[in-house]
Amino acid sequence: MSGITNTETPINVVVWGENRHEQVEQSVRDIYPNGMHTTIKEGIEENLGSDVQVTTVTLDDPEHGLTEEVLAATDVLVWWGHAAHDEVSDEVVERVHKHVLAGMGLLVLHSGHWSKIFGKLMGTSCTLRWRSEQDRELVWTVDPTHPIAQGIPHPFIIPAQEMYGEYFDVPAPDELIFLSTFTGGEVFRSGMTYRRGFGKIFFFSPGDQDYPVYHQKEVRKVIANGVQWAKTLRPERAAPVLLRYETEDFYNGHGYQGAISN
Amino acid sequence: MSGITNTETPINVVVWGENRHEQVEQSVRDIYPNGMHTTIKEGIEENLGSDVQVTTVTLDDPEHGLTEEVLAATDVLVWWGHAAHDEVSDEVVERVHKHVLAGMGLLVLHSGHWSKIFGKLMGTSCTLRWRSEQDRELVWTVDPTHPIAQGIPHPFIIPAQEMYGEYFDVPAPDELIFLSTFTGGEVFRSGMTYRRGFGKIFFFSPGDQDYPVYHQKEVRKVIANGVQWAKTLRPERAAPVLLRYETEDFYNGHGYQGAISN
Amino acid sequence: MSGITNTETPINVVVWGENRHEQVEQSVRDIYPNGMHTTIKEGIEENLGSDVQVTTVTLDDPEHGLTEEVLAATDVLVWWGHAAHDEVSDEVVERVHKHVLAGMGLLVLHSGHWSKIFGKLMGTSCTLRWRSEQDRELVWTVDPTHPIAQGIPHPFIIPAQEMYGEYFDVPAPDELIFLSTFTGGEVFRSGMTYRRGFGKIFFFSPGDQDYPVYHQKEVRKVIANGVQWAKTLRPERAAPVLLRYETEDFYNGHGYQGAISN
Amino acid sequence: MSGITNTETPINVVVWGENRHEQVEQSVRDIYPNGMHTTIKEGIEENLGSDVQVTTVTLDDPEHGLTEEVLAATDVLVWWGHAAHDEVSDEVVERVHKHVLAGMGLLVLHSGHWSKIFGKLMGTSCTLRWRSEQDRELVWTVDPTHPIAQGIPHPFIIPAQEMYGEYFDVPAPDELIFLSTFTGGEVFRSGMTYRRGFGKIFFFSPGDQDYPVYHQKEVRKVIANGVQWAKTLRPERAAPVLLRYETEDFYNGHGYQGAISN
Repeated sequence: MSGITNTETPINVVVWGENRHEQVEQSVRDIYPNGMHTTIKEGIEENLGSDVQVTTVTLDDPEHGLTEEVLAATDVLVWWGHAAHDEVSDEVVERVHKHVLAGMGLLVLHSGHWSKIFGKLMGTSCTLRWRSEQDRELVWTVDPTHPIAQGIPHPFIIPAQEMYGEYFDVPAPDELIFLSTFTGGEVFRSGMTYRRGFGKIFFFSPGDQDYPVYHQKEVRKVIANGVQWAKTLRPERAAPVLLRYETEDFYNGHGYQGAISN
Repeated sequence: MSGITNTETPINVVVWGENRHEQVEQSVRDIYPNGMHTTIKEGIEENLGSDVQVTTVTLDDPEHGLTEEVLAATDVLVWWGHAAHDEVSDEVVERVHKHVLAGMGLLVLHSGHWSKIFGKLMGTSCTLRWRSEQDRELVWTVDPTHPIAQGIPHPFIIPAQEMYGEYFDVPAPDELIFLSTFTGGEVFRSGMTYRRGFGKIFFFSPGDQDYPVYHQKEVRKVIANGVQWAKTLRPERAAPVLLRYETEDFYNGHGYQGAISN
Repeated sequence: MSGITNTETPINVVVWGENRHEQVEQSVRDIYPNGMHTTIKEGIEENLGSDVQVTTVTLDDPEHGLTEEVLAATDVLVWWGHAAHDEVSDEVVERVHKHVLAGMGLLVLHSGHWSKIFGKLMGTSCTLRWRSEQDRELVWTVDPTHPIAQGIPHPFIIPAQEMYGEYFDVPAPDELIFLSTFTGGEVFRSGMTYRRGFGKIFFFSPGDQDYPVYHQKEVRKVIANGVQWAKTLRPERAAPVLLRYETEDFYNGHGYQGAISN
Repeated sequence: MSGITNTETPINVVVWGENRHEQVEQSVRDIYPNGMHTTIKEGIEENLGSDVQVTTVTLDDPEHGLTEEVLAATDVLVWWGHAAHDEVSDEVVERVHKHVLAGMGLLVLHSGHWSKIFGKLMGTSCTLRWRSEQDRELVWTVDPTHPIAQGIPHPFIIPAQEMYGEYFDVPAPDELIFLSTFTGGEVFRSGMTYRRGFGKIFFFSPGDQDYPVYHQKEVRKVIANGVQWAKTLRPERAAPVLLRYETEDFYNGHGYQGAISN
């Protein structure tokens, strides 16, 4: 990625932050005085500079900040939520889902594993084991040629973190990039990619409201790499469709006119 | 599989049939006089004999025949639907989904690709290209050691079939077993497996209300193999859960007490 | 697997042991007085009883005990080597390779990761990081529906073990079943499957000459599960071949008669 | 990829051509008057312009043109061979293999499926079914977000081609990008990626000495996309190694001093 200059318009990134812990817990505000979403945003900008244009929206914004207009203009959506997954409206989840299938990239961070949108895309419970007791987390690369792993030490060390452990109930990933271990001996598939429709999804588990993880250089680099990777290479936003194709006409599908003939 | 005698109770299979085409189209009744679900059931019994106990339920049954009691006693659910996907209640879909994640096997046949339950498990649009014009379908094995491919000729030939073609918008499968080609030159990933939660899912595309596909020997053998494969080996039906584990206590997780501490 | 009685002839298993440490190191003899291969054999028999017939051969046997006759009669070969990989003759490696592609199952244990046969099947360097310092190894299941994971605690604990850590230079596995962590914080993909030709391969990393790992119940159960899984379901031993097929003759290939026409 | 300008040194590509058919068959010379390797080279240059620097070498060059110096300076090697696989020296194959594991990209085209280097990297027989009878080949995309699929029509049509059909005895790919069908109804996994060591490998089956396939626009675009994809993102050429790491020293491995302690 280094050495390549993007001469096009920058990648449009929206960081979605739940922004609830920051309002009610002083300890979280101490770590993330402008909200976790702001710190995540700054980490992306720090790495990608003018190749990226990052904005933030939060749960309390109208339509959670994720209107049709916003999503249509978003190349990559970054999602952090935890305490208020249930407050995210089904309508917005449906809208985000539609855009992912049509080609919008999605990064799901840490406790976003239990968000409605991640569950809807995975089809599983997305449950795991956890403990918040200052475990050290080591993040190891097992797919060293992957774009998201470039420039990341093997391993990198997060001095204190919430433990997320297996079994993590998600589909086997398309690519397993990172594995994390914890002081207590637990293991977690901490960096994984999925394609759904025309969208590219990267789940990355490090990051928590109680630890300054999103201030850490390596974590910020991984997220920035993920943003670059998740931006679609396809020229337009359009969801897969079901169409009928006549014999020898491979390119002009036509619409479905009902499942029963009469 | 051959040469192994099951000394336990037989596999409990429920074939779910939409049973609508059969009611309104004489041409379908001519092929499947007792309903497609009955023919599918007979194909499984023909292959597995006393190793299996198969029942059928249909859309018009109370709760579509898929009560909590029925599902709890079902090892493998086989699903055929087409014209009335929307009439399947969300509540029943939720219940089936829960049982799949907890370990119930699921076979999704042909037009079931657009069923609510398959879409919910895949997270994608499950769209494809299609044409019903008597194409010949050739089914080729690309995972020759897989249990589901045993005893299946390479290729086997379906004389006339609806064409299902790529791009099929589903996640990359855990295992790609069969590829189909059609007279018109289209291709389809026609046999694929997925694990979701503790459940095993097999999608198999051959089969349509307008063609006698479920009377064909090879198709019946594949479905029977799929039933054997999809039955869980785990001893009990239980969904994955999110639990907290204290350091050095690897086996006694305890429940979640809310995401925000105060 | 439990509850199923094999009414056919038992699975023929050959445990191949290098048997060198046992000859020169008293400490190894103390742990494995009859050789590591014997302990491995006993673990398989303990779990599978009359469903299996296990023999052992070693490096010092003529042709390392792996004659054409022996291999032709072997359903599953279990491989443990370490100090003398280079002494295994290329001819025997070629022979084993041919039988794996033709359908013989193969279990590669621990330091077998650097054996000639494993390298030949993987195509990579099969290198890793390691340390022998009494680390505790925790083995976690990440594919809970897999036959090889049945009856295995999550996690299971090996009190003292050699550390094997990532990056392990092997192809991304077909199935990732187990992940191991070590006291030092390292992680390893410790249980993985691969299909090559018509053969099924299971790599399982726990096990070392300096620790009594092959006496441990859970390790023995995993290896026994692996044996059952690796036995092919295909009816005959035959390698894939390159054949010409005339149009519309899908079943009668004929031999290759040279790449250049004149 | 479009819209991105490479400001670094161009990708160094070497096209290796067997160049035997061209010497002995007038029909091949008519299609590829300057050798197939030259046409392949021109197709890459046509698409990538100044982002690439392409040279060609052939079997008859000293060391087949693949000296240590040449390989050390090669980002991506493109391989076409057919009639003379056996004449490629084992020493050169070993050298190419070493460079792939250390990070050199490799494109294997068409009949290269049976080359020594591809077999060594795959670990399988790489056999298939075939027929050269002017079948039309349709190439379908099943991984629409993949970089190699960008700008490629779905499907694209090769008017006349050699048929390559399943079962193709290769490992399940890391990514399945293209599927081909033929007039006769056969199917082939025609575009697949593999990671081996630190190297990225793309196999692409269209292309034959008897058909003008490498003059076709879409085929040239796929190969050019493959070249861009296969170039490593890692900063240096170095193979994976086996090293010992002391506890808490994650970054300074030291060499192996023999498998047996005394």
